[in-house]
Amino acid sequence: MRVSDAMIFERIAILGAGLIGASIALAARASSAARVVALYDRDAEVRSRALALGLGEVCADSASAVAGADLVVLAVPVGAMGSALAACAEALKPGAIVTDVGSVKGAVIEALSAVVPADALLVPGHPIAGTEHSGPEAGFAALFKGRWHILTPLPDERPEYAAAVDRLEAFWRALGAEVERMDAPRHDVVLAVTSHLPHLIAFNIVAMAEDLESVTESEVVKYSASGFRDFTRIAASDPTMWRDVFLNNREAVLEVLGRFSEDLAALQRAIRWGDGDTLYDLFDRARRMRREVIEAGQDTPAPNWGREN
Amino acid sequence: MRVSDAMIFERIAILGAGLIGASIALAARASSAARVVALYDRDAEVRSRALALGLGEVCADSASAVAGADLVVLAVPVGAMGSALAACAEALKPGAIVTDVGSVKGAVIEALSAVVPADALLVPGHPIAGTEHSGPEAGFAALFKGRWHILTPLPDERPEYAAAVDRLEAFWRALGAEVERMDAPRHDVVLAVTSHLPHLIAFNIVAMAEDLESVTESEVVKYSASGFRDFTRIAASDPTMWRDVFLNNREAVLEVLGRFSEDLAALQRAIRWGDGDTLYDLFDRARRMRREVIEAGQDTPAPNWGREN
Repeated sequence: MRVSDAMIFERIAILGAGLIGASIALAARASSAARVVALYDRDAEVRSRALALGLGEVCADSASAVAGADLVVLAVPVGAMGSALAACAEALKPGAIVTDVGSVKGAVIEALSAVVPADALLVPGHPIAGTEHSGPEAGFAALFKGRWHILTPLPDERPEYAAAVDRLEAFWRALGAEVERMDAPRHDVVLAVTSHLPHLIAFNIVAMAEDLESVTESEVVKYSASGFRDFTRIAASDPTMWRDVFLNNREAVLEVLGRFSEDLAALQRAIRWGDGDTLYDLFDRARRMRREVIEAGQDTPAPNWGREN
Repeated sequence: MRVSDAMIFERIAILGAGLIGASIALAARASSAARVVALYDRDAEVRSRALALGLGEVCADSASAVAGADLVVLAVPVGAMGSALAACAEALKPGAIVTDVGSVKGAVIEALSAVVPADALLVPGHPIAGTEHSGPEAGFAALFKGRWHILTPLPDERPEYAAAVDRLEAFWRALGAEVERMDAPRHDVVLAVTSHLPHLIAFNIVAMAEDLESVTESEVVKYSASGFRDFTRIAASDPTMWRDVFLNNREAVLEVLGRFSEDLAALQRAIRWGDGDTLYDLFDRARRMRREVIEAGQDTPAPNWGREN
């Protein structure tokens, strides 16, 4: 089912006007999925920029933003979700749908459940979309087009809850996303592998290179096209957002990190002992995964992604 | 100094018709840096493809390819350099310049020095250019444009040696590269950081994800846009080439790998103990390196490298 050019919500409120919040505002209006978009950001300077960018009705406090809204989208770092909702919980319209875009679901559900009013409908979610850029200026309407959006509905038996999940799904589809439903613990393990660990590794190697005594930072930068630069892209992502991800998905991240380190130790041993067959076999397997990613339409087959050589 | 549209060599021979060998052939002819390009590959099927692609004069054995050549370029995996040169050493023209494109210099210099004739001029080199694709079809003339080419000249006091280094530098500049000179041990440490370790990490995380029991391979592929896919690109590189790199730059790779693992253990500890400040500081530092890479013209500032979202 694909809904487009059809209003899903009369008024939505977006709390947090960063890359994701700004993109939702732009996409909701471009697709007419929402008639009115209200925004709030706790940073006054970000609010001014959001206003200048014409992202929607920018409010001076979150209670004004959520007043009358049919959908409230929490687009703040994972560690700030609970307090962001608590600050405006009393102003929520009865029956309002509350969702979020956090990269961790278990900890966010725990934080939001503690403060969400009984007559609101909490449907957590996570768009698998983003870029390495941050802030309202980084937002663009096409960010969610063709990307996955994961909803992690709660075990809520109210009939209006099921309707809310369907309606939120229709909203994300109107923004161009493909929607998948999953339980929160599974989401957190899958994302630990596909997103959190890769970011941690990228942050680590980039920071390590900056610290080296044997090779200067300018040499690393100069010759970065030989592999290193690919890691710098994801290591450029917002540090606050990522700090909160690791603090809030600790168990799943530590589990896959342990696995990664174990496998890396085996590779290290193969290098030390000159075991070429082990290295070749592992490199050959890794190559196959690339083909699958491309066949699944999750990346471009162009050399260097079509980046100029 | 920039030489273009000027013949540097009358006849060059390229041994190995993969991505790099094919690109040199195309670039040398497009720039007129060489009048005749002869190629040899030990794989008969690759030779047929090189012929069909019109890369140059494809020879049935390496001795025929190097006969009469002013420049011989070894474009084979690092572990095959010595035997590739040994097989045609007797056929080399006296005074011929011999170079290579290996990603490791110390071990390659050792292997080549043992078999190079006394009247040839060995000037090792390494183009910091490539894509994740392999084989003659992957080659293109613009591969070296604006990229660094590192020459690691030997401590050879013959006056004709200095002239050979200058002439080889002019050749690479004609192909569009920027040329830098460096000693071999330094090259091997710098590349261990900027290239070998990033590839090892990428191979490791991609192979690990394939092995997981808790998350299916199709889930990893499906949600790979959240970070993982960036690692699959460099993990798609030629496995033979990379096996040889790790076997031949063992000490430098083990050194930086030890450092990487040590830093990763510290990050793991910060996550386990909920030390958000340590995480934030490290992530913030990593972000700065991205800006430097972009300012140095080594990557594109477009979100996701302009890859469609």
